[in-house]
Amino acid sequence: MELVTIDEVRAAASRIEGRTLRTPLLEPEPLSAEFASRVLVKPENLQHTGSFKVRGALNTLLDWRDRGSLPEGVVTFSAGNHAAAVALAGEQLGVRTIVAMPTEPIASKVENVRRYGGEIVPTDDLAGTCAALAAEHGYPALYPFDMPEVIAGQGTVGLEICADGPEPGLVLVPVGGGGLLSGVAVAVRALAPRARIVGVEPETSNAMSLAVRAGEIVPVPDPAATIADGLTAPFAGRHTLAHVLALVDEVVEVPDRAIGEAWRGMVESTKLLVEPSAALGLAALRTGAVRPRPEGATVLVLSGGNTDLHRLAAQ
Amino acid sequence: MELVTIDEVRAAASRIEGRTLRTPLLEPEPLSAEFASRVLVKPENLQHTGSFKVRGALNTLLDWRDRGSLPEGVVTFSAGNHAAAVALAGEQLGVRTIVAMPTEPIASKVENVRRYGGEIVPTDDLAGTCAALAAEHGYPALYPFDMPEVIAGQGTVGLEICADGPEPGLVLVPVGGGGLLSGVAVAVRALAPRARIVGVEPETSNAMSLAVRAGEIVPVPDPAATIADGLTAPFAGRHTLAHVLALVDEVVEVPDRAIGEAWRGMVESTKLLVEPSAALGLAALRTGAVRPRPEGATVLVLSGGNTDLHRLAAQ
Repeated sequence: MELVTIDEVRAAASRIEGRTLRTPLLEPEPLSAEFASRVLVKPENLQHTGSFKVRGALNTLLDWRDRGSLPEGVVTFSAGNHAAAVALAGEQLGVRTIVAMPTEPIASKVENVRRYGGEIVPTDDLAGTCAALAAEHGYPALYPFDMPEVIAGQGTVGLEICADGPEPGLVLVPVGGGGLLSGVAVAVRALAPRARIVGVEPETSNAMSLAVRAGEIVPVPDPAATIADGLTAPFAGRHTLAHVLALVDEVVEVPDRAIGEAWRGMVESTKLLVEPSAALGLAALRTGAVRPRPEGATVLVLSGGNTDLHRLAAQ
Repeated sequence: MELVTIDEVRAAASRIEGRTLRTPLLEPEPLSAEFASRVLVKPENLQHTGSFKVRGALNTLLDWRDRGSLPEGVVTFSAGNHAAAVALAGEQLGVRTIVAMPTEPIASKVENVRRYGGEIVPTDDLAGTCAALAAEHGYPALYPFDMPEVIAGQGTVGLEICADGPEPGLVLVPVGGGGLLSGVAVAVRALAPRARIVGVEPETSNAMSLAVRAGEIVPVPDPAATIADGLTAPFAGRHTLAHVLALVDEVVEVPDRAIGEAWRGMVESTKLLVEPSAALGLAALRTGAVRPRPEGATVLVLSGGNTDLHRLAAQ
C-alpha cells in the first residue's frame, strides 16, 4: 500500500493554512522538572473545535474541492471530535454533514457537533450505521482515520512540531484508529530522522497493538471500555496499519488507571484543559512504558480538550 | 508621584528574558464568535509558577542584584501567586523567601510556594505580619504590587500584547492591588495609544474602585469575600493608584455570581485551566459592564491558573 508522502503533508499544510490554528509548542516547567529532560507539548486542545481533527477533515474536503469532486453531503462516524471537525469543514465549504455517534456520548462533544450544524444519528454500530447512511443519502464517507487525505492533514501536527521546536528525540502520540500517529510519523520520520516515534493506546482499546501483533486488522472486543473516550476506534485502518508498520518505532499500551491519573496530572502541570485521550503520552512516561531519550526533546501530542469538568474533577 | 516609564518596562523585559515565558497570544474561536469581534487572550496561566507574578518578582530581585543590593532574604505577603513568584525568583538568585499567607489558602497555591522553597507564615493580618517579619529578620519586603520594579515587571505583559497581536482596541485586566493593571497601562498607553484600558475587580473586593472614587487609599472591609481568591488585596497601593488615575480609562466592578459563571465559561471556551481571577474580563464583557470597541481587538489578560479542580467543577 502506498504511504502518504511528506510532500502530501506539506500540500495539506498549504490547503488548511488560515483555517486551522498553528498551535504553539509549549514547554511546561513541571513536566521538564518531573522527567529531568526537556518535555514539550503540542496543545491541539486549543485547535478549532478543540481537537486536531479539523486538520484532516478540512484537508479532505479542500482536496476534493480542488479536484472538482466536492459532494453535496458527507457521512462519517465518530466519538465526537472528528464529527465536530467534519461539521466545521462542511459548514465552511457548504457540505451537509451526517454523523453516526455513540448513544452515550460526551455532552460537550454533542454540543460541539451541533454548533457547526452537524446532524447526529445515535447508534451502537458506528461503522455499520455510517455505511447505511452513505447508501441512503448517496453521500461519500469522510472516515475518521483511514484515508490518505485525513492522514496527510493530521501530519501537519508533525510538520509544526519539527518546524517550531528543538530537535525531537521522542514523539508520543495517542492512538485510536491511528490517523494522527500515521500523519505525524510521515512528517517526523522525514524531518527528524533520529527521533523515536511511539504510539500510545489504552490497554482496553488497543486496535493498533492487536493489528501490529497479528499483522492484520483485528476487531477490538469492547473499545468503549476505556476512560479515553476519544480513542475508542473499533479497529485499526488498512492505511494506518501500513503507516505504523513502516514508520513507527513502537506502539505501547497503558492501563486505564494510569490514564486517569495522568489526565489530572496533565491538566495540573500544563494548565491546559485536555480530554483523557490527550494524557496517553504522559501515562506512558509515568508508567515507564517509554523513557525520554538522552538526546533530543520529548514531545507529547495533546490531541484534544473536549471533556466534562465533573469527570475531570472526579479523577 | 513618578510613574514607571515604557523604558523601564523595556529594561524589565531584557532582565527577565529567558527566565519567564513569552506566553502566546491566543484567539479562541468561541470567544470571538460570542462577541462578534476579535477577542484574544494572554494566557499567563501558562507562565512559570502559573501566574504573571514571576515577571515582577524576578524584575525586582534582578534589578536589586544589578545595583549590588541583593539581600540575603525577603519577606512578602500574598494570597499565593506572588508568594510562589518570589519563592521562584529567590531560589534562582539564592535569596531566602518568607511569606505571610492567608490561614485558609488554596491548596494548590501552598504547594506551589513550597515547590520553590518558600517559607509560609499563616496569618489573618497579611500586611501587619509582613511588616513584623521584616523587622524580625531585617529583610526588605518585596511587596505584591506597590513597587515600581514590580509594576515594570508586570508591564512586560502589555509589551508582549502590543508586539505579538493585532492592534488592541480594548485591554481588560483583572485588578487586585493594581500592579498588573498599572504595568500593562504603561506599556499599552505608550505603544497602542488609541486602545481603551480597563481594570476589572470584584464588587466585594474593590480596593481600586474605592480608591479611585475617594482619590485616596481606602481599606476594603472584607476583601476575602470574593470567589476570585487572587484579587483579595486589602487596599490599593500609592504607586498603583497614581498609575490608574493617570493611565487607565476606567475601573469597573463585577458581581461574584458573574465571575463564577465566567470562570467556567472561560475554561470551556479557551480550553485553558485558569483561576477565577482570570475570568474578570470575560465577566465584564458578559455583564455588559464593558463592550468591545468597533475598531481594534479585545484582549483579555488571563492572570493565572492556580486553582482546585473541584471548585471549578462545582461552578
